[in-house]
Amino acid sequence: MRVRYEHVHWELARVLRANGFAPARAELCAQLFANASRDGVPSHGVNRFEQFIGAVRDGTVDPAAEPALISASGAFEQWDGRRGPGVLNAHHAMTRAIALSRAHGWGIAGLRNTTHWMRGGTYGWQAADAGVIGVCWTNTRAGMPPWGSTTLRIGNNPIVIAVPRASGAIVLDMALTQFSYGAINEYRRRGETLPVDGGYDTTGQLTRDPEALAASKRMLPIGAWKGAGLGLMVDLLATLITGGFATHELSPIGADGVGYSQVFVAIDPSALPARAGGVAEVVDAIVDDFHGAQQVDGRRVFYPGERTLEARVENMAHGIDLDLEIWRRVQAL
Amino acid sequence: MRVRYEHVHWELARVLRANGFAPARAELCAQLFANASRDGVPSHGVNRFEQFIGAVRDGTVDPAAEPALISASGAFEQWDGRRGPGVLNAHHAMTRAIALSRAHGWGIAGLRNTTHWMRGGTYGWQAADAGVIGVCWTNTRAGMPPWGSTTLRIGNNPIVIAVPRASGAIVLDMALTQFSYGAINEYRRRGETLPVDGGYDTTGQLTRDPEALAASKRMLPIGAWKGAGLGLMVDLLATLITGGFATHELSPIGADGVGYSQVFVAIDPSALPARAGGVAEVVDAIVDDFHGAQQVDGRRVFYPGERTLEARVENMAHGIDLDLEIWRRVQAL
Repeated sequence: MRVRYEHVHWELARVLRANGFAPARAELCAQLFANASRDGVPSHGVNRFEQFIGAVRDGTVDPAAEPALISASGAFEQWDGRRGPGVLNAHHAMTRAIALSRAHGWGIAGLRNTTHWMRGGTYGWQAADAGVIGVCWTNTRAGMPPWGSTTLRIGNNPIVIAVPRASGAIVLDMALTQFSYGAINEYRRRGETLPVDGGYDTTGQLTRDPEALAASKRMLPIGAWKGAGLGLMVDLLATLITGGFATHELSPIGADGVGYSQVFVAIDPSALPARAGGVAEVVDAIVDDFHGAQQVDGRRVFYPGERTLEARVENMAHGIDLDLEIWRRVQAL
Repeated sequence: MRVRYEHVHWELARVLRANGFAPARAELCAQLFANASRDGVPSHGVNRFEQFIGAVRDGTVDPAAEPALISASGAFEQWDGRRGPGVLNAHHAMTRAIALSRAHGWGIAGLRNTTHWMRGGTYGWQAADAGVIGVCWTNTRAGMPPWGSTTLRIGNNPIVIAVPRASGAIVLDMALTQFSYGAINEYRRRGETLPVDGGYDTTGQLTRDPEALAASKRMLPIGAWKGAGLGLMVDLLATLITGGFATHELSPIGADGVGYSQVFVAIDPSALPARAGGVAEVVDAIVDDFHGAQQVDGRRVFYPGERTLEARVENMAHGIDLDLEIWRRVQAL
């Protein structure tokens, strides 16, 4: 069923206020959840909201905890998320990185001890909407084995890279597994198989069956050994830059998303070396060249974030397409 | 055949001096080529040397061109590589990033208008050997199609991430294709098939045949659509941060490696928030956890760079394992 964005936002904010969120924080948190569904990422939006409220109710996430500044030096700040709501912590950290980039050209905010940031792309769009380049990443609990192994040791450690553009930002938001848990759960919910292999089943065979992957939890990293290696490096960088917990320390905590280490980088394009035409012309030329490619079936190709905008336009015009059963449960929260 | 490292270095330096390199630059350039073979990456070391000298002789690479500082602001410098030798330009840019990180905690050197940096890992090891975290990337000519397309629009845009560690640095050096051109050529040279699919043949079928990939040039990005998107973002960041050429501008130049845009980032761990035990203990704990995984066949797992060290030890002890035919051609240069 389709529900107006404003109504989804209002309903989520109501539930948040009833669960310990101060009004302004409930507004922003509800907005970020609603935006994820509005932008075509329901797995990390409304479809994840019930689980999020569960984490608040069982004390895993402290709705009243605000991030605390630990240290500041030039363009680098370090924050303690105090296990507050991950979306609010991450939004705050990117806000700080953006502010630092205005003053220094570059800004880096390390955020330790936070909780799940839900849709990582949120903070890329936040940067791009502010007119700056944004790069952020998080570590996670272990969800992938090193290449050739069955032992989970590496997080799916999502990476977000965003470049502002007047006619639509380019925003890459990807976990290092071929499919994120959220995406796997969406395929399970819809009863669909994956378009390419997503990992190994419990017998060690590559599989496109999302149920088999939910059982085995042996997710395939992008690029096999390459993604496994990249995952290790992302964890190292997140842990070292924030002074927070590493993947191997997160896994024993048990609750998903608790204690994560995240890094937010913002770069002000006005601080970058100018080329004729400026940043806008350079970015447009790269996108135009990319669009010059054609899919084998004659369809056009999409840059990262392009379909996000299309989903946004459609969901704002016709209402957000919600799963009826999930929406009823959210309304009953 | 195995040839002593010192002799390989000496021979390469001799050829470089005879081809317009000043003595000190010939020494360093020869060292970086020899190091690649010493570290088990002959595709970007001795096996690539003849092609490199060819680029010098035909004027594609100017052996006398030194990088020129364009702008400097705080921790950020921008350099023009002036189409000098890519290895020397990249080494210089990482040297600058390291120096900036000593002063500011973080250092960023943008390098435009350079030529092929050969083995990207060189500059990661350079940072790690200096005790700092190093991150660098380069754009390249188009070598991959966007997902679902046959039109080459995206570079394989290698990424390097290095973390220092007393008992052996962790250094990821990866192109965004499942296999680099250099790796594909090594498989062709050895007459071996690839261990996993590397791309599409000319009929559009996934293939593990390196000859088919050399013919089709339709390389598979890591993670299918994910690597294609990541490649676009790496090009955007390289182009914007350096003010240099984008992939779509490099491809018409024709000669491989000419005009590349590269970014070098160094982070001084002493500027990072301390945890009990310091950086060394944090990194060791992450590596120890990773090593706790076991391969299904009982072998141990390797972190990125671990086998590099093993190759280095063996090649320094017994001489670098060279392809006899290639080595004779190098000696005849």
